[in-house]
Amino acid sequence: MSILIRDAWLVTQNEKREIIKGDLYVEDEIIADIGKINVEADYIIDGKNKIVMPGLINTHTHVAMTDMRGIADDVELEDFLTIVWKEEAKRSREEIYRGAKLGIEEMLRTGTTTFVDMYSDEDVIAKAAREKGIRAYLGWAVVDEEITTQEGSPLKNAENFIKEFKNNSLVVPLIAPHGVYTCGEETLLRAKDIAEKYDTLMTIHISETRKEVYEHRKKTGMRPVEWLDKIGFLNNRIIAAHLVWLTLNEIKILAKNEVKASHNPTSNMKLANGGAMPLVEMLQNNILITLGTDSAVSNNNLDMFEVMKFAALLHKNERWRASITNAQMVLDFATVNAAKALGLNAGSLEVGKLADIVVIDATEPNARPLRKETIVSNIVYSFSGLNVEHTIVNGKIVYERRN
Amino acid sequence: MSILIRDAWLVTQNEKREIIKGDLYVEDEIIADIGKINVEADYIIDGKNKIVMPGLINTHTHVAMTDMRGIADDVELEDFLTIVWKEEAKRSREEIYRGAKLGIEEMLRTGTTTFVDMYSDEDVIAKAAREKGIRAYLGWAVVDEEITTQEGSPLKNAENFIKEFKNNSLVVPLIAPHGVYTCGEETLLRAKDIAEKYDTLMTIHISETRKEVYEHRKKTGMRPVEWLDKIGFLNNRIIAAHLVWLTLNEIKILAKNEVKASHNPTSNMKLANGGAMPLVEMLQNNILITLGTDSAVSNNNLDMFEVMKFAALLHKNERWRASITNAQMVLDFATVNAAKALGLNAGSLEVGKLADIVVIDATEPNARPLRKETIVSNIVYSFSGLNVEHTIVNGKIVYERRN
Repeated sequence: MSILIRDAWLVTQNEKREIIKGDLYVEDEIIADIGKINVEADYIIDGKNKIVMPGLINTHTHVAMTDMRGIADDVELEDFLTIVWKEEAKRSREEIYRGAKLGIEEMLRTGTTTFVDMYSDEDVIAKAAREKGIRAYLGWAVVDEEITTQEGSPLKNAENFIKEFKNNSLVVPLIAPHGVYTCGEETLLRAKDIAEKYDTLMTIHISETRKEVYEHRKKTGMRPVEWLDKIGFLNNRIIAAHLVWLTLNEIKILAKNEVKASHNPTSNMKLANGGAMPLVEMLQNNILITLGTDSAVSNNNLDMFEVMKFAALLHKNERWRASITNAQMVLDFATVNAAKALGLNAGSLEVGKLADIVVIDATEPNARPLRKETIVSNIVYSFSGLNVEHTIVNGKIVYERRN
Repeated sequence: MSILIRDAWLVTQNEKREIIKGDLYVEDEIIADIGKINVEADYIIDGKNKIVMPGLINTHTHVAMTDMRGIADDVELEDFLTIVWKEEAKRSREEIYRGAKLGIEEMLRTGTTTFVDMYSDEDVIAKAAREKGIRAYLGWAVVDEEITTQEGSPLKNAENFIKEFKNNSLVVPLIAPHGVYTCGEETLLRAKDIAEKYDTLMTIHISETRKEVYEHRKKTGMRPVEWLDKIGFLNNRIIAAHLVWLTLNEIKILAKNEVKASHNPTSNMKLANGGAMPLVEMLQNNILITLGTDSAVSNNNLDMFEVMKFAALLHKNERWRASITNAQMVLDFATVNAAKALGLNAGSLEVGKLADIVVIDATEPNARPLRKETIVSNIVYSFSGLNVEHTIVNGKIVYERRN
């Protein structure tokens, strides 16, 4: 299969962050050529008035919850969790599969080509992902055995899932210890061992709420990140979600251990987690920042374009400084940074990279005027995911707008 | 001309905030019937999997700036103003007309049926509005004569504009004294006299930035709202934009004078105005709250769906309380409240109201699952303006998605 996109604005996200007017040619799963290209192709996209950019990477969601959209709005976190857990206790594997399918459809519709998930029953989520053709990093959720609702041991379930999907091309299995308030030291270290044994990534929630930090200090005398460091859990395999309530010392610990951050500004604001992830200090300490939507229950959509805007604006507002974030920085979070965090050969439009690509219709009024100087600004500050016209994953067109 | 929408979810925004499954019939410019309707019509919309809601009302923008989208991002306010004013100094009336046309196109595309504008050359903006068929409250901007770039006297220009458009059906003229840092006491009071003479509304920027408040105190010894009250400017004709930096005393003054608020959360966050409009205290004092996008230079789109989400989430985040705002409250800001502020017989789907209506395609993934209980949540927290399929203003279909 080959695809030729002709004469479009290419937001390359290469080292120089070049935006060039030209053609892009995909052969099988790879970007085979960029520039002025004279070649036949199975599928041709006229790039006139179109913007082509790397697919967005959502580094934190619970995709199977998408069909629970809107069930727990505008309530304090304790009530939120009560509602969600009650609903989840009733869910069948079939419902998880259907929820995941809807969420994946939404992500492909809105330009996300890769996502990182945390949930149980990731095997049925993997089925949905393979049917839809999205790139899926699926983290089987692990909590202490005494509190789990999973059948059998969460750690064993996670290990079996990793073994089963280890050599899949689009589905990448990982292990997802849920958090310090649901996983004790032993569970965390056994999860880490599994990640090392099978050479996978890990993902975990860290310091999303004040309550989590307060209670962990009461229990251990230490803040979550300090404690995770002390027990020897932290390493460069980890994508840590939220990280709202961090001290400068914890930032330095995360940096030292090369932990990657998944920032979820929309979810944090909607749940009123308070404050904001200390982005500025994290950047100063060279922590790799990526972006996530979190679930459709706390967001309530999976639109990474919207998350980019919320990320940029939250920090401007928080620090009373408009120059503290900028559009290019935030686009990097959602593309090149995320690809780096996952060790994925994508995130930019360059020859030899995986063909994870989004085509935007720039004839919509919110994309006009179309001029090179403001394309990145429009991507971050003006577009919604519904501006997307084609989504290509691994060289295949997996979403195409009718008309 | 008559339009029949068959068997849709109708978000009525009536007194009881009912959501009903049924038909809606438009005859000429009026909603003529709602319920189970047996009638012929010139145009029929199949409402299956569609949501029908009142058109959104944007109470603060500078629509002619839409073609300047993205020219002044991520810079502090002083630099922002320098860039914008330099650009505006070069603009012809033809450019203002074209910018307005683009902005109006974007608003109709994203479900806004009425907007309140502040700019010079509102006569050419009126031309664009009439061509596109949007309902437009156009406020001719007034500043002190010594600093104006308008030809002639701004007050006279505004008065002439009001006289010319006074009896127009879709274009409603008003007067827009720009702010306390650009209008002295005499200008403000003369603007008020013009509004009273011709019985029009007024719109003005108030307390957008700390700098404005600080400098006004330095000059007059009073905060802007206190001073505006003292000079006798405030009354119930005023829609005041921003109102970020208010004391409780100023809130009580605004309430006493029945001044209406246009809250612009996205613009305020992007410009890092700091803090947030004191929504909670304003609601406690019964100030009527409406929403605005502000211009495409400070937002950077004109999507009122996005503004609703930013409004809800900003205040949750600001006060660390998720229950402080809710979806229904915010939808009210953008519909019934705004209609009330403008004295407009619209903002809800009720028999006898003006047919300003939006039809949403709920087959998009971000609109699913479609269930009555979460429709308002989806409108505020999940949709983008690009979910809009039809926009109807004054009984005419002014936007229809191709396909």
